[in-house]
Amino acid sequence: MSFGFRVTHTDARARRGVMTTAHGEVQTPAFMPVGTQGAVKGVLHKDLEQLGADILLSNTYHLYLRPGDDLIARRGGLHAFIGWPRPILTDSNGYQMFSLAAQRTVAEDGVQFRSHLDGSAHLLTPEKAVDIQARLGSDIAMVLDECLAHPSGDELIRPSMERTLRWARRARERFLTLYEKRGRESFSGRESSSEGVIVTNGGQAQFGIVQGGVSPELREESARGTVGIGFEAYAIGGLSVGEPTDVMYKIVAGTTRCLPEDRPRYLMGTGTPQDLVESVALGIDLFDCVLPTRNARNGQLFTSEGPVNIKNARYAEDDRPPDPACSCYTCRTFSRAYLRHLFQSGEINASTLNTLHNLHFYLDTLRQIRDAIAFGRFESFRAAFHQSLSRRLHDP
Amino acid sequence: MSFGFRVTHTDARARRGVMTTAHGEVQTPAFMPVGTQGAVKGVLHKDLEQLGADILLSNTYHLYLRPGDDLIARRGGLHAFIGWPRPILTDSNGYQMFSLAAQRTVAEDGVQFRSHLDGSAHLLTPEKAVDIQARLGSDIAMVLDECLAHPSGDELIRPSMERTLRWARRARERFLTLYEKRGRESFSGRESSSEGVIVTNGGQAQFGIVQGGVSPELREESARGTVGIGFEAYAIGGLSVGEPTDVMYKIVAGTTRCLPEDRPRYLMGTGTPQDLVESVALGIDLFDCVLPTRNARNGQLFTSEGPVNIKNARYAEDDRPPDPACSCYTCRTFSRAYLRHLFQSGEINASTLNTLHNLHFYLDTLRQIRDAIAFGRFESFRAAFHQSLSRRLHDP
Repeated sequence: MSFGFRVTHTDARARRGVMTTAHGEVQTPAFMPVGTQGAVKGVLHKDLEQLGADILLSNTYHLYLRPGDDLIARRGGLHAFIGWPRPILTDSNGYQMFSLAAQRTVAEDGVQFRSHLDGSAHLLTPEKAVDIQARLGSDIAMVLDECLAHPSGDELIRPSMERTLRWARRARERFLTLYEKRGRESFSGRESSSEGVIVTNGGQAQFGIVQGGVSPELREESARGTVGIGFEAYAIGGLSVGEPTDVMYKIVAGTTRCLPEDRPRYLMGTGTPQDLVESVALGIDLFDCVLPTRNARNGQLFTSEGPVNIKNARYAEDDRPPDPACSCYTCRTFSRAYLRHLFQSGEINASTLNTLHNLHFYLDTLRQIRDAIAFGRFESFRAAFHQSLSRRLHDP
Repeated sequence: MSFGFRVTHTDARARRGVMTTAHGEVQTPAFMPVGTQGAVKGVLHKDLEQLGADILLSNTYHLYLRPGDDLIARRGGLHAFIGWPRPILTDSNGYQMFSLAAQRTVAEDGVQFRSHLDGSAHLLTPEKAVDIQARLGSDIAMVLDECLAHPSGDELIRPSMERTLRWARRARERFLTLYEKRGRESFSGRESSSEGVIVTNGGQAQFGIVQGGVSPELREESARGTVGIGFEAYAIGGLSVGEPTDVMYKIVAGTTRCLPEDRPRYLMGTGTPQDLVESVALGIDLFDCVLPTRNARNGQLFTSEGPVNIKNARYAEDDRPPDPACSCYTCRTFSRAYLRHLFQSGEINASTLNTLHNLHFYLDTLRQIRDAIAFGRFESFRAAFHQSLSRRLHDP
């Protein structure tokens, strides 16, 4: 099965659709739980499937360093290695290299860095990022991009954005060389392409990434350039890095207008439940974020009435479920008092139960969004959602 | 429902039976997963139920210190607090106080110690251990006993064993005062007994504990004394504390002969899979042990072919399941290579998947034991079991 996307409903700028990948369909707008090292921390695959997760995100940077993309290719690719039969998107190494790696030097050829695990030296080029992800065999591969810290001035953003465009061109060329020259259908796993790279998923798609900081003009230039190269779909990178929320929404609103209607739009690394609803209103189809999983491990639960910090002493004798409106296993079975006890006692199950709930909250919010769009009542859903979270509405 | 026990099959000294508790039946011989703080580390209740765990063990010492037995009583007892509707046995504070608490002083009245959590001072008496467990409302409460380190000479073991007997008499008296004077049926949860203690489970049973170190004579004396006091059933404590395996089997063999046939026999804190099979052969009905759960978190898997240390480099590219003969979720879904990667990467799911497998191995071994006894072929099962684990048979 090759990559495809079909918009089935629209409601103002919000869209509902179906994204097709080599490992099955994804209902959009979709949220991708983050399984950095090939596992969502604290939640088993079987529970993710029960929660209705259509697609997982995994990190090329981490898997390349450990256990290694060669090892994973020899196992038949990431799906076989981690035992997850549904779609997988692999993030490019970009963001992780800029946040985790030491002694990073960016040059035209690529990025030199040292591993955060053992200090070993690595050079990552746009081509190498393609090759690694070909070995991993994810359904969606991301191009290598450069992520700047916020705030950066235009004098830094422009050359970085232009380099990301040049890298995108090189990445696309490499991708086409690996997959198209030989003919996608001829790959049957564990086979080397003509370039000597083991390709484990002949149906892989490649997404371009729009950069350009918080400058609307540079974002537009980056979007037009990236679309000009031509990818299966497009992502907006370099947001949710510390800029104010209204600035992010403004950039998302402007950038989505420059992206084709018939391809999914992926807002990388965002965000709060409110961010998701607002971004869907601006035409975004795909999300990933560590918030629901990371905050869960720190004891913060997302609920229909706003956040609950379960470690708070006020919950010590609270027999209510974390979110009385929620139907997840955690809320059906356990009280705030018990969850607080598990957290205070350092029990592993605290992470698991909190993560199950937060992922359910995110995935269920997306389900409600999709239903609302299908029934042409997304605006009223959006208003009710923000009101229930007691947060002032953002008007983009 | 009140406590009961019925032997349904015997095969030499091995017995199969059904233990009835206020929260349901337990098929014996049974293994009780350890949920020290009201949770089995890394495994959710729903997965424990799927694994076929009939009964959980939880620790009075830990729950008394955090979150506190009063808090749990106000929640309606341990079953309600932790959301586990099936049987629960609470270990007395004995073993934990001797292994965890600081500045411990044992006197005739009870044990003075400081909390390992905050250094606070506590006095635990046999009566107080009864009261705490009455508040917790477990289905089976254990008396407070004194645990000696191994090796100890008879001059230490005798006075300690005799004190444990005197404590057992006080514990039973307190238990009968709480439950019998008022009439068990009148308790409906969260109600105070005539002594001002909230009793959350009117159907609680109390087990006595036989001590006496590795001296057959002192063990026999302790067993006769404990049975003389009269409890719903009897446990063998103070073993698996470092003595040689054959010494343990000898003590178990001798002690079970002194315990009534019509009551379950519980060997506390034991042991390896081989120990379980050998102890069933000697007439034991109940087990608990941290081995399957603790070793799982350290990367050791129990398999039908012996232990697998999953962190070993030899498994880095091993695509086989941990135990090819096993039908658990972990073995059905994941490879040794992936489990090693999760362990090396410090992923929470490593603990969870390893623990699921080890508990399955233990619980499934007990299932096989029960079937073998029912069909009168326990001896051949036992021989095959030891042979498959490639370990020399112990002949008690």
